Amino acid sequence: MTFNFKNVYINDVATIAGPYEKKGPISKYFDKSYSDFYFGEKTFEDAEVKMLSESVNKVLEKVGKDSADVFISGDLLNQIISSNLTALNLNIPYLGIYNACTTSTEGLILASSLIDSKKIKSAITSVSSHNCTSERQFRYPVEYGGSKPKVMTFTSTGACSAYVSNQKSNIKIESGTIGRVVDMGIKDVYNMGGVMAPAAAQTIYDHLKDTNRDISYYDLIVTGDLGIYGKEILKKYMQEVYNIELKKYNDCGVMLYDLENQDVYAGASGPACLPLVSYSLILKRMMKGELKRVLLVATGALHSPTLVNQKKSIPALSHAISLEVVE
Amino acid sequence: MTFNFKNVYINDVATIAGPYEKKGPISKYFDKSYSDFYFGEKTFEDAEVKMLSESVNKVLEKVGKDSADVFISGDLLNQIISSNLTALNLNIPYLGIYNACTTSTEGLILASSLIDSKKIKSAITSVSSHNCTSERQFRYPVEYGGSKPKVMTFTSTGACSAYVSNQKSNIKIESGTIGRVVDMGIKDVYNMGGVMAPAAAQTIYDHLKDTNRDISYYDLIVTGDLGIYGKEILKKYMQEVYNIELKKYNDCGVMLYDLENQDVYAGASGPACLPLVSYSLILKRMMKGELKRVLLVATGALHSPTLVNQKKSIPALSHAISLEVVE
Repeated sequence: MTFNFKNVYINDVATIAGPYEKKGPISKYFDKSYSDFYFGEKTFEDAEVKMLSESVNKVLEKVGKDSADVFISGDLLNQIISSNLTALNLNIPYLGIYNACTTSTEGLILASSLIDSKKIKSAITSVSSHNCTSERQFRYPVEYGGSKPKVMTFTSTGACSAYVSNQKSNIKIESGTIGRVVDMGIKDVYNMGGVMAPAAAQTIYDHLKDTNRDISYYDLIVTGDLGIYGKEILKKYMQEVYNIELKKYNDCGVMLYDLENQDVYAGASGPACLPLVSYSLILKRMMKGELKRVLLVATGALHSPTLVNQKKSIPALSHAISLEVVE
Repeated sequence: MTFNFKNVYINDVATIAGPYEKKGPISKYFDKSYSDFYFGEKTFEDAEVKMLSESVNKVLEKVGKDSADVFISGDLLNQIISSNLTALNLNIPYLGIYNACTTSTEGLILASSLIDSKKIKSAITSVSSHNCTSERQFRYPVEYGGSKPKVMTFTSTGACSAYVSNQKSNIKIESGTIGRVVDMGIKDVYNMGGVMAPAAAQTIYDHLKDTNRDISYYDLIVTGDLGIYGKEILKKYMQEVYNIELKKYNDCGVMLYDLENQDVYAGASGPACLPLVSYSLILKRMMKGELKRVLLVATGALHSPTLVNQKKSIPALSHAISLEVVE
């Protein structure tokens, strides 16, 4: 299901990142990054809330506003607590969403739909993830120091907010595709790239079909957080199942870190991964005229420790957002 | 923030309930109810997924369709797993949402907005809760048998789906109000009614102000799951803070069970509570002409065991939906 949007723009974005991201290759594009995991707070959860609130305040400062009509947000923590507490501080109407690591594009689709239909004029849509809060919730506390297989991705630490409105800017949100849940039967909680690749493939295919476009329409397609192995799986899967060759393609999980010199296994993951890369490097490249049409394909593993303990496989979901440079 | 909807209707609803609900006073209005907590499944989680899937299939059967454009769903479980697995079975574009026990009205607002703006023609919007899955996740396993204070509410077991579209029916979704997060500093995980009452009050006030209506406009206002003590707190709070007297008012947490003869403490709670009551008894009363205008004010405690263990208080949120009978 693809929605076309007529007058919806990203007016500005804000990105706050953690220590691994700070040491990565695109660090200079972030609005702020921290050297530790606590950010001066007592708990990792407080640190994540601080980071998410800072990203909201930063984007408001950048667009010169003190509020927006609606706040749409989600994160990886149970009951999306980082978003809830950020919404409490913000005191504007709040819609909480959860689609794991495709929450960023889910939020952009919902915000764009409400603006396009003139229900609201502006929205802030945000996501966050924190390596230490999410690893202990989904697998083991980081302090436990368990060894990891090479296909494992590293949950990124970051918070990203976009101020979206009907006020024209150079970055138009042109359309969005809502994905369908896919389950290929994978039960390995250390192989999220493999879990998510088929969901990304299905959404890219659905998007191209719905918009009657060829893959060459886009100057760049990026997936959310497949990592180096998941990225190769997606390319093969697209070719074999849909007969589509992914050429001008990359994965934000591969772009966020220096994979040769940073100890992050197969690359980055987490709901913050795609917007950390796309709200910084990719938007900058669009503003410079290097890219005109970009498809953001965030990828979410609907991983549940409860269901994994009950021997269930892990479903996946992917929503896409098409961005265009306008003069 | 209140949205007005021009051509959005509830075409039909489906309600599946558990054993306590089956013994309650409005049992005869449910489409189906079970006598135990397992429904023939091996785990409580599987039981909840079965119930939610059945409610979706039932509403599709009732409207004579085999699909809808979008599925919008949420539930109480971490990572909203019941909704994810129902979406997997359904294979239609899926938006996962989480606002605790106000998820039902959040889903109706989003579905109605997308239909009203002609982005989609139809949506299924669903919620579920299961006493045994949620009690062990949020407090203690039910089998532990801990004693409870009298202000405690009892998480309802039920799944509710609404088929919403632009096709005219007798029940129009007239408007919806998105709430703001409130935190009164309460840390007692056994007093959700007290936590949520101020959020409900704020949303009722916002709704009346946005629509320029007097409280007497509605034939009935129902809150989601405040229970007998929360209901009294809301009435006093509305009077004292907003100078509004709640007369034609009830709480679904009070209506779902026979509070004198069932061992359910202060009444029902959970995201299924409000739709179990409103999609059965209240819609029936609207169809009979006994009620013309009803305001559904679902109430969510954004309760997190992690944050409670970190000595944080519990925020709350409430979204409202206005229903009207049309000829």
